[in-house]
Amino acid sequence: MKTSFKYITKEHKNMYIYTHFIGTFILDETTQIHDIELVNTNQTAAQCEQKINLRHKNVSPLPKELTPLFLAKLKDPKYRSLFHQSNEYQTQEALKETVNEDNLIIQSVSLLDEIDRAVNIISKRLREWHSLTYPELEHKIQDHIFYAKLISEKTNIEIESDLKIKNNLGANLQQKDIIPIKLLANEVINLFKLRKQNEEYLTQLMQTHCPNLTELGGATIAAKLLNHARSLKHLAMLPASTLQLFGAEKALFRHIKTGARSPKYGLIINHPFVQNAKKDEKGKAARLLADKLSLCARLDYFKGEFKAPEYKKELEKKLCL
Amino acid sequence: MKTSFKYITKEHKNMYIYTHFIGTFILDETTQIHDIELVNTNQTAAQCEQKINLRHKNVSPLPKELTPLFLAKLKDPKYRSLFHQSNEYQTQEALKETVNEDNLIIQSVSLLDEIDRAVNIISKRLREWHSLTYPELEHKIQDHIFYAKLISEKTNIEIESDLKIKNNLGANLQQKDIIPIKLLANEVINLFKLRKQNEEYLTQLMQTHCPNLTELGGATIAAKLLNHARSLKHLAMLPASTLQLFGAEKALFRHIKTGARSPKYGLIINHPFVQNAKKDEKGKAARLLADKLSLCARLDYFKGEFKAPEYKKELEKKLCL
Repeated sequence: MKTSFKYITKEHKNMYIYTHFIGTFILDETTQIHDIELVNTNQTAAQCEQKINLRHKNVSPLPKELTPLFLAKLKDPKYRSLFHQSNEYQTQEALKETVNEDNLIIQSVSLLDEIDRAVNIISKRLREWHSLTYPELEHKIQDHIFYAKLISEKTNIEIESDLKIKNNLGANLQQKDIIPIKLLANEVINLFKLRKQNEEYLTQLMQTHCPNLTELGGATIAAKLLNHARSLKHLAMLPASTLQLFGAEKALFRHIKTGARSPKYGLIINHPFVQNAKKDEKGKAARLLADKLSLCARLDYFKGEFKAPEYKKELEKKLCL
Repeated sequence: MKTSFKYITKEHKNMYIYTHFIGTFILDETTQIHDIELVNTNQTAAQCEQKINLRHKNVSPLPKELTPLFLAKLKDPKYRSLFHQSNEYQTQEALKETVNEDNLIIQSVSLLDEIDRAVNIISKRLREWHSLTYPELEHKIQDHIFYAKLISEKTNIEIESDLKIKNNLGANLQQKDIIPIKLLANEVINLFKLRKQNEEYLTQLMQTHCPNLTELGGATIAAKLLNHARSLKHLAMLPASTLQLFGAEKALFRHIKTGARSPKYGLIINHPFVQNAKKDEKGKAARLLADKLSLCARLDYFKGEFKAPEYKKELEKKLCL
C-alpha cells in the first residue's frame, strides 16, 4: 500500500507521533495522518519509529484523549489489508520465537533413544547373518559396537587368533558373500558414530541452557527429564516428587488403582547416586536427588547461580558415597 | 592316537581294505589290522583311502561275511575316543554344509525390511527436527531420501529459491544447531545406500540360485516367498495355492474361523501383474501368477530349464496386459 503524504508540518502548531503495532504515524491535532511508516519484513515497529524520527523533529507523543479518535480512524476498510499483513507477520515472528533451546534439547535427546532402537534392529540382523560363518563369536561378545568393529576390520581367521575364540561350526563363505556382512557392520559403526556426535552436541546444549541440572544429573538424564516435562519452564514448576517419578507413570497408576507397591524412582534410576546407593537406601537416594534436581531446574530457569557442585557434595555426604 | 603297524603284507595271502567313516583299514583274513589311516581335520574318508592305496597294492575289498567280525573289533574301548573325535568332526562338517544360498537370501531379504524400519525411525526424527527451522518443507516433500538429500546438501535459502517453497514460519537456527540436523540427514542417506547395495547383492544371489523365480517374480518378491517358506526346497514342495496366500495368514485364518471373505493374495500383491490387473481380475491374476511361480520354484530347485520368460508371456497374454 503506497500513500504519499505532503510534508505540511510547518502549517500545524502541534505534531504528534503515535506508534501502533502496524507502524508509526505522524498526526496533527485533528488526528489527520501526515506521515506513515509501516511494519514489514524489513522493519519492526521500533525501527519504524526511528525512521520517522529522522524525518520529523519536534513531535510529541499523541495525548491520551486523542488516541480513541485516531484508533477509530484505523477502522477504515483501507487499513484492513495492512492490519492483516502486519498481523500475519507478527504471528510468524512469534512462532519463530517459540523455537528455543528446549526444542533442540528435546529433539536431540529423543534421537538418542531412536538411534538405539535402529542399532538394535540392525545389530540383531548382523549377529544372525555373521553367525552363519562364525557362530561362536556371537555368544562370546555381547557388546554390539565391539562386535561390529571386529567384523568390519578383521577376517574370521584374524579374530580367531587374536581373541582365542575357536571357530569350528561356521561355514566358509565366499568373499562376495562376506562383503554385504561387512557393509552391514560398517553401518552399525556409523550409527554409533552419529550417536556419539549427537551426545556431544546434547551435552554442550545442556551445559549452556541448564548448567545446574546438567552438572548434578548428567547431560542425558537431565535432558530426559526436560523432555518428559516438555520444557524447562514446566520442569521448574513441578514439585520434586513428580520429577522423582518421571518415567514411572505406569507403576504409579498401578499403585493408585490397585494399591500395589509405590514406585521409588523413574528416569533417575540410572543416576550414579541411585545406582550406587545401598539396596535399602535407593528410595531415599532418589528422593534426595529429585529434591536437588528440582532446585537445579529452578535455578536454571530463572538464570540463578551455579550451585550444583555444592548440592552434589551435600548429597554425597548424606548418602555416604 | 598313535599306533605303529608292522608292514607284514607279504606274509598273508589276501589283504583286505575297508573304509569306515572313522578311516581306512588294511586287514588280513583274520581281520587283524595291519595299517590304518584316520579321518581328521586334514583328510576326509576318501583321502584316507587314496593315501592307503598308495602304500598297499593288490588289496581287495573286505568280503561281506568278514565285515561283522571286523566291526565287532571296533567296539574295543581303545577306539572310543577315535569314534568320538571323528563323529564330532563330521557333525561339524555337516553343520557347515547346512549353510547354503537359502540362508544368505533369507538374511539379505530380511535386512531390507529392517533397514526400512530403521530409516522410518530416523527419518521421522529428521522431519520433526528440521521442521523447527523449515516447517513448510516437511509437508511438501513426502519422499524420505529426497528430503534427506535436500537437507544434507543445501541451505534453507537455497532450497527456498530452487523449489519455490516459501519459508515463513521456521526459526533461524545458528550454524552449530544446524550441524546435527545435517549429520542426521547424512545417516538417512547412508542407510539408503546400504539398502541399495543389499538389494543389488540379493538380486545377484537370486539370479544365480533361483533364476526362474527371480525372472518371473522379481528379486524382492521371490526372495520374500523363499524367506516365508524358509527354503527353496520347501517352497518347491508347496502347492501353488499356499504360495498365493503367503503373508495373508491372518486373513486366511479369519476366513476359516469366522467365515469372513477369503483372501485373494498375500506377498504377491506387490507384483506388477496383480497391481496392473483390472479390479475384478486381481484374484484371477494372483492365482495364475502363483501357479507359474510355483512351477518356477520347482524348476529352480531341481535345476531345470530357464522357462520363466515363456511363462511371463503366457501370463501377459491371459491377463491382457
